[in-house]
Amino acid sequence: MGLFTKDIKSMDDLFLHVVQDIYYTEQQITKALPEMIEKATNRELTAAFKSHLAETKKQVSRLEQVFELLGQSPKGTSCPAIDGIIAEAKEIAGEIDNKKVLDAALIAAAQAVEHYEITRYGSLIAWADELGHEAAAKLLKTTLDEEKATDKMLSSIGEKKVNLKAAG
Amino acid sequence: MGLFTKDIKSMDDLFLHVVQDIYYTEQQITKALPEMIEKATNRELTAAFKSHLAETKKQVSRLEQVFELLGQSPKGTSCPAIDGIIAEAKEIAGEIDNKKVLDAALIAAAQAVEHYEITRYGSLIAWADELGHEAAAKLLKTTLDEEKATDKMLSSIGEKKVNLKAAG
Repeated sequence: MGLFTKDIKSMDDLFLHVVQDIYYTEQQITKALPEMIEKATNRELTAAFKSHLAETKKQVSRLEQVFELLGQSPKGTSCPAIDGIIAEAKEIAGEIDNKKVLDAALIAAAQAVEHYEITRYGSLIAWADELGHEAAAKLLKTTLDEEKATDKMLSSIGEKKVNLKAAG
Repeated sequence: MGLFTKDIKSMDDLFLHVVQDIYYTEQQITKALPEMIEKATNRELTAAFKSHLAETKKQVSRLEQVFELLGQSPKGTSCPAIDGIIAEAKEIAGEIDNKKVLDAALIAAAQAVEHYEITRYGSLIAWADELGHEAAAKLLKTTLDEEKATDKMLSSIGEKKVNLKAAG
C-alpha cells in the first residue's frame, strides 16, 4: 500500500502518489506481457512484446532511482485504472479464436496500456519540472520516450501487417 | 450489454465491439464530468471541462451515426478500463483538500480519460480504413482530433496555471 489519497496535501505528495501508481502499473505490465507474448502469432508483434518486456524491467529500476532521489522506499499503490485496462485486455484476448483478429485485439490492448503510461509520465514530468526535481524529470522523460516509441511501433505493426491479413 | 467477446470472429466483429466499448466510455464521461466541473477551482479548468462536456455529448451522437452506418442499434458494452480510470479519478479527487493540488490531480485524471479515448479511436480508425468503412472513419477522426485538442489544452492549463500556484 502506498500513500493514501487523504494524505495528499501538497504537489510533492501528489507527485509521490503518482510515482507509486506508475510503479505498480509497470509491475503489473511485467506480469501481463508474458501471456500476451504467448498469445500473439505475428512474429513482429511477438518480438515487439518481448523487447518491451525487457524495456519495462528497466523502467521499473528507473522508477526505483526516482524513489531514491525523493528519499523514499519504492512501493506501489493500488491503481484501479491499470487493473481495469489489463482486465479488459485479458477478457478480449481470451475469447478470440481467429489468430489475425486476436493479434489486432492484442495490439489495441497494448496501446491502451501504453497510452495510460504516456499520460501518467506526462503529468509526472510536468510536476517534476515545476517542483525542481530535475534528475527525476530526466529519468521519467527517458521512459516516456520509450513508451511513445512502443506505441508508434505497435501502430505500425497493426496497420502494415495484422489488419491487412485479418481484413482480407 | 453489447457483443460478447466470444462472439468476436472477424475484424468487423472486433470493430463493432470496440465501438460499443467507446460508446459506453463516452456515456460514463458525460456522467463523470459534472462532478469534476463542480470540484475544479481554476476558472480556465472549469471552462475547459464544461466545454468538453458539451463536446462529449456531440461525440455520443457521432457514435450513434457510426452504429447506423454499420446497420446496428447503438448499445454499450462493459468496459473495465474506463470504469477503473474513472474510479481512480474519483478516489484521488475526493480526498484532496488543497484546491490547487486538487486541480492538478483533476487535470491528470482527465488526461488519463482522454488518452484512453485517443488510443481506442486510433485503433478504430485504423480498422475502419482497412475495412473500407470510409464514412465511419471520417466521423471517428473528427472525434479523435477533438480528444487530442482537449488533451493539449489540459496540458497547457496544467503547466501554465495550476502547477505554478500549487508548487509556490
